[in-house]
Amino acid sequence: MNTYDLILRNADIATAGDRYTADIGVRDGRICAIAQGLDASAAREIDARGRLVTPGGVDGHCHFDQPTSDGSRFADDFLSGTRSAACGGTTTVLPFAAQQKGRSVQEAVDDYHRRAEGKAVIDYAFHLIVADATRDVTQRELPALIEKGYTSFKIYMTYDDLKLDDRQIIEVLATARRHGAMTMIHAENSDCIAWLTEQLLDAGLTAPRYHSSSRPMAVEREATHRAIALAELVDTPILIVHVSGREAVEQIHWARGRGLPIHAETCPQYLFLSAEDLGIDPDDPMHGARCICSPPPRDKANQQFIWNGLSSGLFTIFSSDHAPFNMNGSDGKRVAGDDASFDRIPNGIPGVETRLPLLMSEGVLKGRIDIHRFVELTATNPARLYGLYPRKGTIAVGSDADFVVWDMFPEGQEKLLANDMLHHDADYTPYEGMRLRAWPGLTVSRGRIVWQDGVFQAEPGSGQFLPCLRPRAPNDGNPLDKWL
Amino acid sequence: MNTYDLILRNADIATAGDRYTADIGVRDGRICAIAQGLDASAAREIDARGRLVTPGGVDGHCHFDQPTSDGSRFADDFLSGTRSAACGGTTTVLPFAAQQKGRSVQEAVDDYHRRAEGKAVIDYAFHLIVADATRDVTQRELPALIEKGYTSFKIYMTYDDLKLDDRQIIEVLATARRHGAMTMIHAENSDCIAWLTEQLLDAGLTAPRYHSSSRPMAVEREATHRAIALAELVDTPILIVHVSGREAVEQIHWARGRGLPIHAETCPQYLFLSAEDLGIDPDDPMHGARCICSPPPRDKANQQFIWNGLSSGLFTIFSSDHAPFNMNGSDGKRVAGDDASFDRIPNGIPGVETRLPLLMSEGVLKGRIDIHRFVELTATNPARLYGLYPRKGTIAVGSDADFVVWDMFPEGQEKLLANDMLHHDADYTPYEGMRLRAWPGLTVSRGRIVWQDGVFQAEPGSGQFLPCLRPRAPNDGNPLDKWL
Amino acid sequence: MNTYDLILRNADIATAGDRYTADIGVRDGRICAIAQGLDASAAREIDARGRLVTPGGVDGHCHFDQPTSDGSRFADDFLSGTRSAACGGTTTVLPFAAQQKGRSVQEAVDDYHRRAEGKAVIDYAFHLIVADATRDVTQRELPALIEKGYTSFKIYMTYDDLKLDDRQIIEVLATARRHGAMTMIHAENSDCIAWLTEQLLDAGLTAPRYHSSSRPMAVEREATHRAIALAELVDTPILIVHVSGREAVEQIHWARGRGLPIHAETCPQYLFLSAEDLGIDPDDPMHGARCICSPPPRDKANQQFIWNGLSSGLFTIFSSDHAPFNMNGSDGKRVAGDDASFDRIPNGIPGVETRLPLLMSEGVLKGRIDIHRFVELTATNPARLYGLYPRKGTIAVGSDADFVVWDMFPEGQEKLLANDMLHHDADYTPYEGMRLRAWPGLTVSRGRIVWQDGVFQAEPGSGQFLPCLRPRAPNDGNPLDKWL
Amino acid sequence: MNTYDLILRNADIATAGDRYTADIGVRDGRICAIAQGLDASAAREIDARGRLVTPGGVDGHCHFDQPTSDGSRFADDFLSGTRSAACGGTTTVLPFAAQQKGRSVQEAVDDYHRRAEGKAVIDYAFHLIVADATRDVTQRELPALIEKGYTSFKIYMTYDDLKLDDRQIIEVLATARRHGAMTMIHAENSDCIAWLTEQLLDAGLTAPRYHSSSRPMAVEREATHRAIALAELVDTPILIVHVSGREAVEQIHWARGRGLPIHAETCPQYLFLSAEDLGIDPDDPMHGARCICSPPPRDKANQQFIWNGLSSGLFTIFSSDHAPFNMNGSDGKRVAGDDASFDRIPNGIPGVETRLPLLMSEGVLKGRIDIHRFVELTATNPARLYGLYPRKGTIAVGSDADFVVWDMFPEGQEKLLANDMLHHDADYTPYEGMRLRAWPGLTVSRGRIVWQDGVFQAEPGSGQFLPCLRPRAPNDGNPLDKWL
Repeated sequence: MNTYDLILRNADIATAGDRYTADIGVRDGRICAIAQGLDASAAREIDARGRLVTPGGVDGHCHFDQPTSDGSRFADDFLSGTRSAACGGTTTVLPFAAQQKGRSVQEAVDDYHRRAEGKAVIDYAFHLIVADATRDVTQRELPALIEKGYTSFKIYMTYDDLKLDDRQIIEVLATARRHGAMTMIHAENSDCIAWLTEQLLDAGLTAPRYHSSSRPMAVEREATHRAIALAELVDTPILIVHVSGREAVEQIHWARGRGLPIHAETCPQYLFLSAEDLGIDPDDPMHGARCICSPPPRDKANQQFIWNGLSSGLFTIFSSDHAPFNMNGSDGKRVAGDDASFDRIPNGIPGVETRLPLLMSEGVLKGRIDIHRFVELTATNPARLYGLYPRKGTIAVGSDADFVVWDMFPEGQEKLLANDMLHHDADYTPYEGMRLRAWPGLTVSRGRIVWQDGVFQAEPGSGQFLPCLRPRAPNDGNPLDKWL
Repeated sequence: MNTYDLILRNADIATAGDRYTADIGVRDGRICAIAQGLDASAAREIDARGRLVTPGGVDGHCHFDQPTSDGSRFADDFLSGTRSAACGGTTTVLPFAAQQKGRSVQEAVDDYHRRAEGKAVIDYAFHLIVADATRDVTQRELPALIEKGYTSFKIYMTYDDLKLDDRQIIEVLATARRHGAMTMIHAENSDCIAWLTEQLLDAGLTAPRYHSSSRPMAVEREATHRAIALAELVDTPILIVHVSGREAVEQIHWARGRGLPIHAETCPQYLFLSAEDLGIDPDDPMHGARCICSPPPRDKANQQFIWNGLSSGLFTIFSSDHAPFNMNGSDGKRVAGDDASFDRIPNGIPGVETRLPLLMSEGVLKGRIDIHRFVELTATNPARLYGLYPRKGTIAVGSDADFVVWDMFPEGQEKLLANDMLHHDADYTPYEGMRLRAWPGLTVSRGRIVWQDGVFQAEPGSGQFLPCLRPRAPNDGNPLDKWL
Repeated sequence: MNTYDLILRNADIATAGDRYTADIGVRDGRICAIAQGLDASAAREIDARGRLVTPGGVDGHCHFDQPTSDGSRFADDFLSGTRSAACGGTTTVLPFAAQQKGRSVQEAVDDYHRRAEGKAVIDYAFHLIVADATRDVTQRELPALIEKGYTSFKIYMTYDDLKLDDRQIIEVLATARRHGAMTMIHAENSDCIAWLTEQLLDAGLTAPRYHSSSRPMAVEREATHRAIALAELVDTPILIVHVSGREAVEQIHWARGRGLPIHAETCPQYLFLSAEDLGIDPDDPMHGARCICSPPPRDKANQQFIWNGLSSGLFTIFSSDHAPFNMNGSDGKRVAGDDASFDRIPNGIPGVETRLPLLMSEGVLKGRIDIHRFVELTATNPARLYGLYPRKGTIAVGSDADFVVWDMFPEGQEKLLANDMLHHDADYTPYEGMRLRAWPGLTVSRGRIVWQDGVFQAEPGSGQFLPCLRPRAPNDGNPLDKWL
Repeated sequence: MNTYDLILRNADIATAGDRYTADIGVRDGRICAIAQGLDASAAREIDARGRLVTPGGVDGHCHFDQPTSDGSRFADDFLSGTRSAACGGTTTVLPFAAQQKGRSVQEAVDDYHRRAEGKAVIDYAFHLIVADATRDVTQRELPALIEKGYTSFKIYMTYDDLKLDDRQIIEVLATARRHGAMTMIHAENSDCIAWLTEQLLDAGLTAPRYHSSSRPMAVEREATHRAIALAELVDTPILIVHVSGREAVEQIHWARGRGLPIHAETCPQYLFLSAEDLGIDPDDPMHGARCICSPPPRDKANQQFIWNGLSSGLFTIFSSDHAPFNMNGSDGKRVAGDDASFDRIPNGIPGVETRLPLLMSEGVLKGRIDIHRFVELTATNPARLYGLYPRKGTIAVGSDADFVVWDMFPEGQEKLLANDMLHHDADYTPYEGMRLRAWPGLTVSRGRIVWQDGVFQAEPGSGQFLPCLRPRAPNDGNPLDKWL
């Protein structure tokens, strides 16, 4: 008779494609068998009868312990960040090794490994932020890094210390095409934002809520259209990150209709927060700062467009864009003081732990998306897109034993979300007070139980670095051919 | 040690969501275990090492032995039709029990069961063609039939003996909504076709190729828009069948962008045939008749739009619309003689057997769609849409053991498609001469081998009727609420 | 030295194309000279220094003394209707000779001439409502009537006593194409309205405001798309009448972008009224009835789309759709009693007199459209579209001397619109209380002063019937050619 | 009795708004009277009975004697350029005073006046090319120049010596808004062109036809979208110059549908030339160079989209973009030698003389646009857009006496277009061999006959500089308000 390290019995398994009840047999961190009445014993058996089991979440967009240059500090390092992820059902994270202008990408990678090692409690891979797309970087460094398992790039169309111009974007895309990598693009028009910000500051409009006026939808739409055009030019896929509302959605929808390979990501903040949340609290002028992120949350009508895009298949992935800053303390949102103008407040909000429960509660359990879309958006698709599939992102024979067993709370007995339930090191959550109908009861990472019945139980450093596969074949063809 | 009826070893399994290598254990017609190195024995073991295994196809749109009123005769009955399906890798079919005007739907169902029994070699369910949407039909008969497992309707916006007017369509949709059924719509504007046909005949333009002029894209686009509007009015999902090209695609794309629940189907003829195929052969004025179907095949640019829709997710399912008529003989395409005008030639072409191999060859193996989309389009989604999932449409523990093991032919050694390879009773295939890179080597239906190494081996009548589940929950709400 | 019947001195003339200051010399009802310092004398001279002069309005859509079958009665006959028009600056009207099902169109024309003769005070032409598109009507009667100067048809896609099915619409369009006539289409889906109305009545929702729920935007959008498709099929221009909001606008915008010859009309009610105006007044449950017309007024966002369409050139004409019923009395809005359900209240509102002042005040003087668009929309384009140009619709040498000299009221001294200012016979205006910044001070029709300084001064019967030219050349080509 | 300098009798006058027959009386260069049977005498009378008379053309986009930096030379100076214009029916031109980077705009204006004076034979105004949008330029120089009658700017999104970045564009637009000026934008993405050009040269693809591959439609579409977004941001009108095909048209169409004030221009080369014209002639590898301009001509399908845009009202103006280079000689298209790569060939083609005859022949006389659209596109709208109306652009009392009397050539007797008929100094016309059905028989500029019966008869320097009015009111509002 077979023996396993762990058997999960009678699981109500949901994957991107399927839903069925079976036992899961795990050995050496991998799923070895899925069967009805699995005729085997295990060191540990857990009965999941009547409980939903989904693949462990893959968070394709989060920031941990990323160096900053303005005195601010990300509230989470790899320990608190991955701990928070695990307690929220996520078993793989992809934070960013960020090149600094004038430095090599390899330096950033080396530094980032040092930050992760000995700390991460779940598995992780790195995206590469390309902030200085010199010829050496695009022709030599990036191809070499792809070989080593760093197969996705992120580029910015805004932020002075990060942004690339169109020509640099083209060069990065051409490298991605030639070597089979994936490129994520932050799409907002930098010059428009700078001009609006200047107008706002000139007019004395500095409160947190003007952050939203400084980056209207049209600014995101323009950059989205441009990013699509550049990808069309080079004839290679891209992912538009954190799409916030209708006008950007329409550009992506249009591109898809023309057969262009444009992927898109959205995040909880565009479903659950709105521009109103940036408003002024009489007792704390900085209150709105807790919801400052870019692009900014829009209005209710835009939230509906984001929901439509999730259900219709427009969005490929759903990520947290976890970028945690404390509200209090001199290295967080108040870094520039209590009356800082909006342009000096660090951009970003925490969310790695709440991503899955919020989408399960408000999406699946309220009938807006089905359970297969949930799995696809939160686990299977990010794993595929970034070269981690089939090891990550699904429940299937041969895959890593990464899964979540859900606790469900019936109507009227919802769990009230509060920051002190969470395991990040940020001193607030923007979703404080939301009523949740689901939370992971058990998280298993490579067969190890890391979160069970409210107890976190993993060793710092037990997470492994994951070299990524190329998400698609290198393309030797000349992109020019398309235009002849 | 477990024993199974059948074990498929080392299968390279692809489903809508996953791809992995494992052994599949089958007992009592169902999949009981999926494991690496399944530690069990079986009455029969087959080694599939290195071979792709996909779920058996579900053909959501085919016509077998359907009564006609014009002297023509469908070339396939349930025996030859399901035999042909099985040899092409399809293990479930959904043909149509067609109500006649002035008769009940139940009569059609009873008659159709008689035609199927003792003949079908694979499992089958029935769609109901509603041709006379009286109050009794929509209020009493259809709800009763849904209870019994007939949970999908098909309605026509053209053909004099089948078409419903807008009010009747609304009533059918309201019934579908209230009772959780699915409605398929054939969308072409009847009056436009009639007028164009009259103009063509008046001008003496009667050759087969004028069939295409009598039903231009605009006529399909109009009806598609109207069908979408009626579904929006009643607030219930529909499926637009056999979408043929760009203008209809754009309507559906637009509807999806607005969050409307519009599904769409396309068929091989809109990928591989074009209006040119309706042209005149000097030796046989009726040659083009072999490609007459409705909507007619369009041009190359439209084919590309259909491919885009398959890869982008616009289409939910890919069906054959198998509607076989012989070319020769007095009951087929020549029913009205060798110089019949196009409007008297039976509409429809055979395709149940070639559906999967064509899409595998031209879609998956040429890189236009990935293997997961292939499975989704040809098996998982039709099963879901019509209430047969999870019993049909996937390879998962608990599902029926319906699967296909593929033979692949390398470039230069393609299989040349010829009608004498096929197992339908039609005397031609419109795809004669196409080069195939894949064909099912083995088809398994509920654990029974029905096709292996070029030999068909099932007993007539061994297929079972499948009562369908409701594809979604009945909706008690008043559709009016949307408009208040 | 030349002598004229009338000279208007120093007029600030605005036409569709031009703006300049000059003297206008009128003889025998026509404009004979336009010059700076016209060196001539006249029987009557009027100094218009500093005052805006525009062409007399051409109202391309109004109903006077039209027979009804439900006990209701149009409040205006040709005398009160044309009087009201003249006092509001309109010098040409195009009401409807409405065929009854089973009767000839000629009968309606003869009857309508009898109703107009001896009454009309300004010039008029007739549109033909084709309610029974028999072969005799489309092949014989309409061509003969076109010869006689009845060159525009109106057809309905809703209303049981008027509506044509798609085939009949096609036949009318084919006649229009062949003989150079223009077709106006009322686009709402009849079956959808009937079903919604039935649902509303079943639910006891009968108040006036449910009129709006019975005819939502989607119902107008569908019919608009269908009308466009039919015009595309036959390859001939149409005009969509009374477009009410965004979704219909988008269809027309799309058609224009594809080069289809689709014209569109809108009316004051879609700029100045909204669904809220159909609401219940506690003191009069029928209050909302005063704004019942079809399509119903929509919401503020839709009003903005209509304004955009006026300024961008999407709309070809701006008409009143004057269809006056009294509120009080047994033959008006209360025809079915004070608690009549919405479906029994006559559809239509008065507006022939307020059309120009409202658009001048809210459109031109508030900067939403320029003065040239105003003239184009209200005079030049309707004259062109219906074969009355260059006799009507402009101020140019050779044209009829039909013009308006405007009084302007500065901000703060606006004229308060009240029904007792108006010259129709309806007992209310839906625009009661609006603040106007302009009103015609002088209206001249064929050189005759018909309205001056608040005094109406024309003889009943002094208006002339205008036979219309064909708005474009007859097209001998076969519409089929487009589809071969 | 009145006396005039010139009377044009019995003219068949067509303007943007009207068509009528009358006599035109001219005194002191202006139109003083328009009348039937004008009762006056004149120094010179011309009978135009039966001949079409239109306003003199206003060419809103042409280049004469503009300094270059690469050894090339524009073939026309103000004498030959305006002579060519006059002989083709154009009576007003708007060439460009082009700022050089690092220099003031005023310098360019002064220099350009020197080049025009004593040479121009028809009236002219200047657009200002802003190539260095420093704070001093946008805040001080441009406002001062607007005061002096230079009220339109042109900016480039490509060409290294001219292009502005997004921030600079915003600053120019903000100045235009504040001071009531108009901004023309050349919309092509510079970085995309540079990258494609580099790829082409690297691949040895240097022939003239690769010019077209270096600037595909997508590159123009992207910049068009971006220009629209920047105009939307600043909330001020712009004109997109020389729109070449479908994808740019769709962006503009979309913007218009949203109510944005986006104007667009197209040119003869996008109607009558195509990418094929850039092809290789076996006898002259540089032959295609004669059609090199930017954006490049597209294909036939795109030409149809441009025609649709002309008839539907999408385009505001139709200009020549006359940018003449000789083919032969070392300062023309062969400046870099006979085997020069495409990127070194001067961009531009001659066309100021052929603009009106081509559009009259192929547009009006072939029924694609009506005569009013012709006048609007070629005269009235450019005059309005650039602050020259009502002095220029129409035939109306008070306007300059600028008009054209047309010769028409019946079918079969068309005039064959040949470069030796033309009056520019370029050594070729790209339209050689086209069959024309119309040509100006008489051109009158401010009452002076400048071209009659094939004879050019104006004195160099007789043209006047025209200070332009502000095309709209300065806007004191803060553009920021839109985004709060």
